[in-house]
Order: sequence, then C-alpha cells, then structure tokens
Amino acid sequence: MERQFVVVGGDAAGMSAASKAKRDDPETDVVVFERGEWVSYAACGMPYYVAGVVDDLDDLVTITPEEFRSERGIDVRTGREVTEIDPERNRVTVSDGDETDEQSYDDLLLATGAHAVRPPIDGLDRDGVYVIHDMADARAIREAIDGDGEPPRSAGILGGGYVGVEMAEALAARGLDVHLFEMLPHVLEPFGEAAAAVVEDHLRERDVDLHLDTPVSGFVGDDRVTAVETDAGRVPVDVVVVGVGVAPTVDLAADAGIDRGPTGAVATDEYGRTSRDHVYAAGDCAEARHVVTGEPTYVPLALTANRAGRAIGATVAGTSTRVGDVAGTAIVKAFDLEVARTGLLDDEAAREAGFDPVSTTITDESRAHYYPGGADITVTLAADRESERLLGGAVVGRDRAGKRIDTVASALAARASVTDLQNLDLAYAPPFSPVWDPVLTAARVLQGDLDAA
Amino acid sequence: MERQFVVVGGDAAGMSAASKAKRDDPETDVVVFERGEWVSYAACGMPYYVAGVVDDLDDLVTITPEEFRSERGIDVRTGREVTEIDPERNRVTVSDGDETDEQSYDDLLLATGAHAVRPPIDGLDRDGVYVIHDMADARAIREAIDGDGEPPRSAGILGGGYVGVEMAEALAARGLDVHLFEMLPHVLEPFGEAAAAVVEDHLRERDVDLHLDTPVSGFVGDDRVTAVETDAGRVPVDVVVVGVGVAPTVDLAADAGIDRGPTGAVATDEYGRTSRDHVYAAGDCAEARHVVTGEPTYVPLALTANRAGRAIGATVAGTSTRVGDVAGTAIVKAFDLEVARTGLLDDEAAREAGFDPVSTTITDESRAHYYPGGADITVTLAADRESERLLGGAVVGRDRAGKRIDTVASALAARASVTDLQNLDLAYAPPFSPVWDPVLTAARVLQGDLDAA
Repeated sequence: MERQFVVVGGDAAGMSAASKAKRDDPETDVVVFERGEWVSYAACGMPYYVAGVVDDLDDLVTITPEEFRSERGIDVRTGREVTEIDPERNRVTVSDGDETDEQSYDDLLLATGAHAVRPPIDGLDRDGVYVIHDMADARAIREAIDGDGEPPRSAGILGGGYVGVEMAEALAARGLDVHLFEMLPHVLEPFGEAAAAVVEDHLRERDVDLHLDTPVSGFVGDDRVTAVETDAGRVPVDVVVVGVGVAPTVDLAADAGIDRGPTGAVATDEYGRTSRDHVYAAGDCAEARHVVTGEPTYVPLALTANRAGRAIGATVAGTSTRVGDVAGTAIVKAFDLEVARTGLLDDEAAREAGFDPVSTTITDESRAHYYPGGADITVTLAADRESERLLGGAVVGRDRAGKRIDTVASALAARASVTDLQNLDLAYAPPFSPVWDPVLTAARVLQGDLDAA
Repeated sequence: MERQFVVVGGDAAGMSAASKAKRDDPETDVVVFERGEWVSYAACGMPYYVAGVVDDLDDLVTITPEEFRSERGIDVRTGREVTEIDPERNRVTVSDGDETDEQSYDDLLLATGAHAVRPPIDGLDRDGVYVIHDMADARAIREAIDGDGEPPRSAGILGGGYVGVEMAEALAARGLDVHLFEMLPHVLEPFGEAAAAVVEDHLRERDVDLHLDTPVSGFVGDDRVTAVETDAGRVPVDVVVVGVGVAPTVDLAADAGIDRGPTGAVATDEYGRTSRDHVYAAGDCAEARHVVTGEPTYVPLALTANRAGRAIGATVAGTSTRVGDVAGTAIVKAFDLEVARTGLLDDEAAREAGFDPVSTTITDESRAHYYPGGADITVTLAADRESERLLGGAVVGRDRAGKRIDTVASALAARASVTDLQNLDLAYAPPFSPVWDPVLTAARVLQGDLDAA
C-alpha cells in the first residue's frame, strides 16, 4: 500500500509540504484537507486588493485546487474540515459539514494557520466593522467600498502593526479619510521606536490621522458603526478595520494532546516534529526556533511557513531536512517608505534572553552625496554589550532602503559580531550607496558606542 | 616629540587613515603628501560628471585640503610628491617639483593608488583619445563635449568593464552615438556570463553599438582621432575613451625594497603592514585578503580602500585593527539595470583556489506575481561541489535587484554553505520580493543541482 501523507490546511505551509513530498516521492499519496474554499493564497496581498492595486481576488491565488490535482497529483479537498486527530491510530476525522469520514495517515502535517484576534471591544459585531484576516474579509471590505451602497468616506483602523499600516495606505488610496488607532505609544512596535517615528511622520504627511497611546473602548452606532469611541472622545467613521494581531489555531492539536510551547503555538523541533510521532506542524500554527536566542518563537509570516512546509515535505519523502531558524525578519511598505526589521530589537526581550543590549540609530544618505535622487535611510542596530554579538536591526527610508535588512538578517544567522558586520564587503557605486553603506555606518557607530562603554 | 604619521597619497585610503589616526590620537602629527591638486575625491563619480548628472567636478570632492587642515588638524600638502622612502632611517624624500625636502616618520602609509593601464595601441596619444582615470581626465572629456569646439557626435569606448559600461551610459546621455569595444566575448567579465548577457541585451536596446570579441589595433587620424581600427574594419568616431583597467602604483614601494605580492600590488598582512617595519599600505596600491580563498587578491575599489585606511589609522593610533577581508563585491548601473557581483564567480579562478565549482543561474520576479511593477531578476550562484560552500554570486535586473548581492557577500563572509544561504530569513512583502527572494530561489536550485550531482 502507498504511504499516506495527510496535510491539514491548504495554505503556504500545507501546500509547500504537499508539493515537495509529492515531487520528491511521487509514490506517496498526498491528501490535503482545507476547510475553506481557497488553497495556496497570498494573505499578504489582501491590502493591495483592497487598495485596487490588485484587481481580482483570484490574482492572489498562486495555484488552484484543480491545478494541484491535475498538475501535481495532490488530492486537495476543499470544504473539508479535520475535526479530530487520533495519533494512537494514525487517523483523522474529516467533516464536510454534513457527514464525517476517517482518513488514515503515515505522516500528518498540521498547517492549521492562525486566526485574527478579536479584541473585547463593544460593538465589534456591528455592520461596517471588519476584523481582517482572510480572503473573505478582504472581499467584504472591498465590496463595502466598490459596492452599490453609499461608499464610505472615512475609516477607522484598529491596530498600528503592519496590517494596520498597509490598510491605512490601501484605504487612503481609495480616497477615504483614515484614522489609525494604536494603544501603544508607537505604530510598528516590533520595528523599534526610531523606525516608528519616521513612519509616523510620513503617515501624518500623507494625511493619516494617528491616534497613538489611544485604546479604543467601543464601536458606536445602531446596526451600523458610526464612530470609534476612545477616552479622548468619539471619532466619526463610516467603516472600521480591525487588525490587532493573530493567534495560532491550535484547538485540533490541543484536543489530540499535542504539546504547545511557551508562545501558545504548537511546539516543534528542528525538523518540524511535534510531541506525537509522525505528526508535524508548520506555518502560522507552529513555533519556530529563533536564530539569535535559540529559543522557541512565534513568527506567523509567509517565508517561515513556506520554508518549514517545504522542509517537512522533503523529510516525509525520505530526506531529513531542517526547517531552519527564523529571525523575525519583516518588511512593510508604508506609502513611500520601506520599513524593515530583523532579530531582537526590544530591550526587554533581549534581556530576557540573557543579553545586555546596546543599540544605536543613525541616519545617512542612500546614495553618494553628489548623486541625485538620494534619500535618508535610518538604521537601528542592537548588540550585546559583553560579547558584542549582533542582536537585531531595523531600516527605514526610501530608495532601496528596506531590503538592506537582509544584510543584517544574514549577519544574525552567522552569529556575527558588530565588527564582523562592519567588515562586510558590501556593494558600492554612487547610484546605490555611499562608500560605507548605511548598515556599515550604523555598525561603525555601534562599535564606537561599545568601545566607549 | 610628537609621533609622526606620514601618509603618501591623499585619496580614499590615505585620508581615511589620516582622519582616523588624528581623531583617535590628537597628539599624533599627521602629514599627508598628495602629488595632485585634489584629495579625498570620488573617482567613482567621474562617469556621472561626464554624463552631466553631477554638475561640478568640485561636487566629487568630499572634503577639501583646507577643511582637512582647519577642521581635522591634518597637515595636507598637495602638489608634493614623495620620491623616495628610506625605511632604514624612517624618512621620506618629498619634491614640490623644484626642490626636495626630507620628512621623518614613526609610521608610514603608502596610499599611492593605481594608474590607468595604457594599452599598446597605435595612436593612443592622438587628440580626442582619453585614457580615463583621474579627475583631470574627466574634466577633459567633459570639456570636449561642452567646450567651444564642434561637439563630438560619436564615441568609441575601449573596454567593457564597469568603467566602460558607465561611460557608455554617460556619453549616450550626452547624445553621442556610442561604440563599445571589448576584446573578450562579453562585457563585465568579472560578473559572469549570465549577467553579462542581460546587460548586453539592454545596452543594445539603448542603442549602444557593441563590438565584442573585437581587439582594437589602432586609433586612426591625423592629429585627431577619426576612427577606431579593428580586424573587422574601421569604425568612425569623434572621440575615444579608454578604460581597460588599472594597475597598482608601486614604484615608490619597489624602489624601497618593499615586497610586492603575487598580484603585483604591495603585499600586506591582516593589519595592512608591509614587509618593512612601520610601513603600511592600503587602497589601490595594495593587496587584500580574499574572504573565500584566504589568499592575496587585488581589488582596487573604494570601500576596500576606505576600510583599510581607517583600520590602519586606528592601529597607528594605538588600537590594532584588522583591515578586513574582501570579496570583490561590486555593483554597476548600466542604464536601467543594476548589476552586481561578489566572490569567486570564475570557474578557473575557483579551481586554482582548490575548489570544484558548480554554478547555476535563475531568473525570477522582483515582486509577488500579483503586485504591479515587478521586473526580472537574474541570479547566479557558485558553490564548491564537495563542501557545498558558497563561492560567489551575481545579480542583475531592475527594481532593487543590485543590492541583493549584499546578502550573498554576507554569506561569503560567514563561510556559508548553500543550505545556510537557503535558510536565511530574508525580508518578504509583496512590493519588495516574492516569498522566496530570488537569491533564496537560486540557492534552492543550486542545492538541487548539488544533490543531483
């Protein structure tokens, strides 16, 4: 009998694993259960669909279920929810809404993803309030703008994380007046204060009304939302988008007695294995190992999911493959700015991991001083005082600023010291960089701070 | 008596060393002898001055001699040539053209730079033929275009290296018909054939007439050049720019019995020390150590010079500082393309260094497939078959392609394997990258090739 590889959840991690396992070992019988209607879709593209930059929701689908079946030989079953795992008998129970069925597995991958956090705020269920997470949410928001009804003229966005910032740009692009509410003192908190300050200035320049340090207590209205309630007063809005974070979807794993880790996501080892034999987990439902701390972390981002899924697919097909560590590298477009971060930037998190963090922020030009078209790039770097090991960094600016974070991410993976970073032979030509790239300049300045300390 | 730090040559390496030494130990007496009229000038900016992108030659000067004197306390003496070093007596002989003088030193830095190679071609001295290397050459070329005489309508460029490619863009921008002559089969030979092919297509699109595999045998004309002579025939041109490479300026060092290395440049150790006590060398006259081979190499580029100079300045001031290894990382703008390379790309060079090179080239999109404005990015990666250690890479494309090479350069410094590169947590968001950055995709494909081998 053929080996059965069963995948629960048909997005990035699940479909990467399914594809890789089938390609590496075509004899394996690969079955994917997806409770929704889409598989392999790009959730990261939703703000651009709302903005109208992407025309059609289907454009966000990389490969359709039919293509997976016909071209890759993967048995994709949408509208099928796995409701129970029996790891003793290597079986899952599957429901199509009416009837249930059983499916046995040799290897099982949990790729159940994450769900949007629903903050405990009065009026969250009012019409015109959208908790954004999946494709259906994006469609609903765009229909609210493009639909037959009176188009909204103003929007409240709850949450200043990357989803909030991207949605601010998207809704502003549609001509709405945008109010962004964040309970913390800054937007993009994981990107550090220096980057956040640059982004906030730019958001204000682009007429986004920032309400920082401002918890929202309710969404006011009769059936339909008409205002956002805060301690500082009411702000009238026609629609609200809530994007305050995601949480791993782990009920299925928990019910099966599969261990969760300190972050609440499913605990995994370096091969993506869970606490139960032949059960793997990857993507937004699973933990990963942090490249700086070596400890479990929760990074629900696309590359982490794709890479872990692919590695597990290879492992299941016979070649044990590590899922790789993560640095929490992220990049966001905020109107004209590129904002990126990697590693441990938060002092408190660094101290909890046993480091004594020292950080510095510099601003330099993106090009040689005499070459036109340059712009400011602001770089933050953090390192451990004693070992001088690099801990993390952030970059914000225009003109190719953002992907410069990849250099810092690469250095983190190499456990580089600040001196190591400073000595990297990075590319220079006048249209692209000063002789000392801003990342190198930041390393030089941080080295000076460490030497002086 | 104060310590004397004497620097020969006032450009990148020399002025970086002088500035750092003086800042770290203000008691040191720092004297810089520069035989020309400029110090601290950006030779890399010359094509952009010729193009008219940079208005004034003085814009290329970062800091004037007067500013070095008044603001940094450095005794800069322009128009002064060091004609002899006596390393036994720690003295140099200095000429101002008329008279000579002696100057003692405690530490000496040779930062004598490089000079343009003058190919043995008939007619090289004709009017209208410019061997480009320094600021005066750039001025002469621009005067030929902007001056009172009949403006040239066509140009021949000799040499398809980065200077040749940059000058092609510069002269095309000034409205000249450009013929580029390269004796090798491809332009940008150190960037590898795949990148070269993309650049060549683009140069042709932009109406640059490429004469590849075409040695030039003479520059025809009476007083003034009127044509370039090749085996394939004569090509009429109004001006010629020759940029076929540079050679280290080492006469002074050779006369003093200071060792040169296998590349012909001054041999140095990891602190930039030469074979004579208290004599350092840095920049375009000196060797550096290659980060992949560990062997001496010659990389006459700005960052190498600046970093080595700065390190030597720190060492002289009391803190022994390594000059750092180099990867030969380079980036060039070729009209709309960004072209970059790092490490060992040439198979022959890799084999000489004891590796068994395997390389692969992929082309992928610069952005998520659904996000508008993306462009092709072509990535070449090379690795050693047995150890799977990464040896080098090249990137060519638009839309933020070029600086992606920094990730590869960082991986080289970490002695990364292809798997290590593949597992880097690089930044992803739809406007900036596919989920798998093209560099990661190239690593994946190369890993597949290695596994299959």
